[in-house]
Amino acid sequence: MADQYAQSGEDIRPIDGIPPEAVDIPAIRWEEPAEGPVLVLLDQTRLPAEEVELVCTDPQALVQAIRSLAVRGAPLLGIAGAYGVALAAARGFDVEEAAGALADARPTAVNLAYGVRRAREAYRSAFEGGAGDGARERAAAAALSSARALHAEDAEASARMAEHGLRLLDELVPGGNHRILTHCNTGALVSGGEGTAFAVALAAHRAGRLRRLWVDETRPLLQGARLTAYEAARNGMAYTLLTDSAAGSLFAAGEVDAVLIGADRIAADGSVANKVGSYPLAVLARYHHVPFIVVAPVTTIDPETADGASIEVEQRAGHEVTEVTAPRAPLAGVEAGGGIPVAPLGTQAYNPAFDVTPPDLVTAIVTEWGVVSPVTNDGLGELCDSSLQATMS
Amino acid sequence: MADQYAQSGEDIRPIDGIPPEAVDIPAIRWEEPAEGPVLVLLDQTRLPAEEVELVCTDPQALVQAIRSLAVRGAPLLGIAGAYGVALAAARGFDVEEAAGALADARPTAVNLAYGVRRAREAYRSAFEGGAGDGARERAAAAALSSARALHAEDAEASARMAEHGLRLLDELVPGGNHRILTHCNTGALVSGGEGTAFAVALAAHRAGRLRRLWVDETRPLLQGARLTAYEAARNGMAYTLLTDSAAGSLFAAGEVDAVLIGADRIAADGSVANKVGSYPLAVLARYHHVPFIVVAPVTTIDPETADGASIEVEQRAGHEVTEVTAPRAPLAGVEAGGGIPVAPLGTQAYNPAFDVTPPDLVTAIVTEWGVVSPVTNDGLGELCDSSLQATMS
Repeated sequence: MADQYAQSGEDIRPIDGIPPEAVDIPAIRWEEPAEGPVLVLLDQTRLPAEEVELVCTDPQALVQAIRSLAVRGAPLLGIAGAYGVALAAARGFDVEEAAGALADARPTAVNLAYGVRRAREAYRSAFEGGAGDGARERAAAAALSSARALHAEDAEASARMAEHGLRLLDELVPGGNHRILTHCNTGALVSGGEGTAFAVALAAHRAGRLRRLWVDETRPLLQGARLTAYEAARNGMAYTLLTDSAAGSLFAAGEVDAVLIGADRIAADGSVANKVGSYPLAVLARYHHVPFIVVAPVTTIDPETADGASIEVEQRAGHEVTEVTAPRAPLAGVEAGGGIPVAPLGTQAYNPAFDVTPPDLVTAIVTEWGVVSPVTNDGLGELCDSSLQATMS
Repeated sequence: MADQYAQSGEDIRPIDGIPPEAVDIPAIRWEEPAEGPVLVLLDQTRLPAEEVELVCTDPQALVQAIRSLAVRGAPLLGIAGAYGVALAAARGFDVEEAAGALADARPTAVNLAYGVRRAREAYRSAFEGGAGDGARERAAAAALSSARALHAEDAEASARMAEHGLRLLDELVPGGNHRILTHCNTGALVSGGEGTAFAVALAAHRAGRLRRLWVDETRPLLQGARLTAYEAARNGMAYTLLTDSAAGSLFAAGEVDAVLIGADRIAADGSVANKVGSYPLAVLARYHHVPFIVVAPVTTIDPETADGASIEVEQRAGHEVTEVTAPRAPLAGVEAGGGIPVAPLGTQAYNPAFDVTPPDLVTAIVTEWGVVSPVTNDGLGELCDSSLQATMS
């Protein structure tokens, strides 16, 4: 049975606006209390109303947290997947079964599968290599250390993406004073570090070259309004929230210098699967001659997926569209976990979680190993090869 | 003081889903109970959860209802404005002052100003032409009869737009089986008849040639989810709801044969101001070679506004974006009329009510007097002239 619970006491702190003394709560952390190891997640479905941590004591609880988007964002899903395997191993669950369930929890995010695979391989080779009574323990330790390594690498990758991304931005839009439009959430909440696209905007802010961060609210789950606005406010950035479809007016008014987004999967040809609403921004950016920049770690590139048409796009439940929910404890009169209907009962909804932007609409892909522009099969292939050689050398 | 109240008793009927026996409640009607004439509006902010009527006994109450979007939609605003002047006259308020306040209640909708002007002119000429004790009463009667005429004309215009629009659709997308994408709400709730763009989709449905109506939810106020889905369900149409930014995926998948929208103001050059989110659809439609069709009565065309840049776009309050509200009576624990914050407190929002689509992105403008395509200054001018001559002959 899944076992996850909200951590009570000091860890639950209501925040209306962002208190200046707020302590940064990491999106994910591994803890080893006396009762046994646990994976602690900042429950992103409750932000920004409340900072509540979710404690997972078994892999099934983590699968649920991934499905409900309590933990989300491509790089963080990879880290979570790896820790999930380590948790299964440390707690004596069937590691292969847990790895399968974790990898399948969300189909589009390639990083999730990557993180799971990496920890499982570390577990397997330690287990097969070892002998005697302690083999299982040593394998569990290997899985954990693989998850920790991925976590640390992701933080390092974040910093390097921010550096490459800001340099590119300064080249493409000379003169600083960047007005950046972003979609969904790509900051510290999705990463072991400061994120992907958001990390670039944050670097611009720290360098005094961010004029405005335009934050798409990102329907249906409002990750922009809830999470990106929260991170922008925490970092003291100049930001403005808008409905996704108001972006068109900003482009038309010449108020956008560049679009910066993350990615959930990049196919071998450079097609980018990202939060639904990214593709319309790419079309608008092209129409208005504005750079459209994708920021993602190399692990997001999936050479096994040939092109955009081969990317499986997750279809989510219609109630995300037909009902509204608010990010806080259920209200009196509202069924726990349920939303308030906004459409007539029985209304069908089309609710893809992602869309796919073809490479010809992408100005550049920024990774921790450098920038690919123009976005081509060969350019991406070379980048992957050089990152692989650097990792192995 | 403004005086509007929710009509109680039989008129308040909860509807979850659409009961098949539902009686059509008109969006607006004039009544003359013993206490004096009133304007009764179906409160569109409460749909689809409840059908509640709002009774306005003075023009200021109507101004509030217009601002809060209890009554909305370009053609209906014209009718409401005209009845508002009639109400001021019948109730002994200062007609000029009331007309000014009504015309200014929302700046972008040209029909509102038109309806107000028409009833006020009827009032003025009856007042100035008459003499003696009964002059004021006769003038009030003239204003009312002008409002009633506008109401009837709008119903007739609806029927003719539906006819012209369906013919155009059949020409542009031969073979029937239309998959139409629409934005915001343009049906019976915005009109004395069956609406504008929605009326065309409804005509296609009745002719057995509507395969699917794709309904954009239309953030921030969700007129698509709340009102268009409600009207589509009532009419038994095949419809599917989506977030505004999921439209991109539909275009990419080849699932949209035509976009049909209404208009709040059309400039002399054919620039179309309509609900925010229309312009991004026009850019997507162009990119995917899909017809983008605007359906609006001739009164929406404003020869006084030269071009798109001259259209004043209403900026609405940020809380429409930073808070979510649900269309029903306030919940326990939520301040009456207030929403639930979804963004950190203090978050600024950019919230234009409309955007402007340039004429080169508009395939055709359908009016009750015929179709203009391509959309040019001359084409629109000729249409306006011929409609004027037909009205005067």
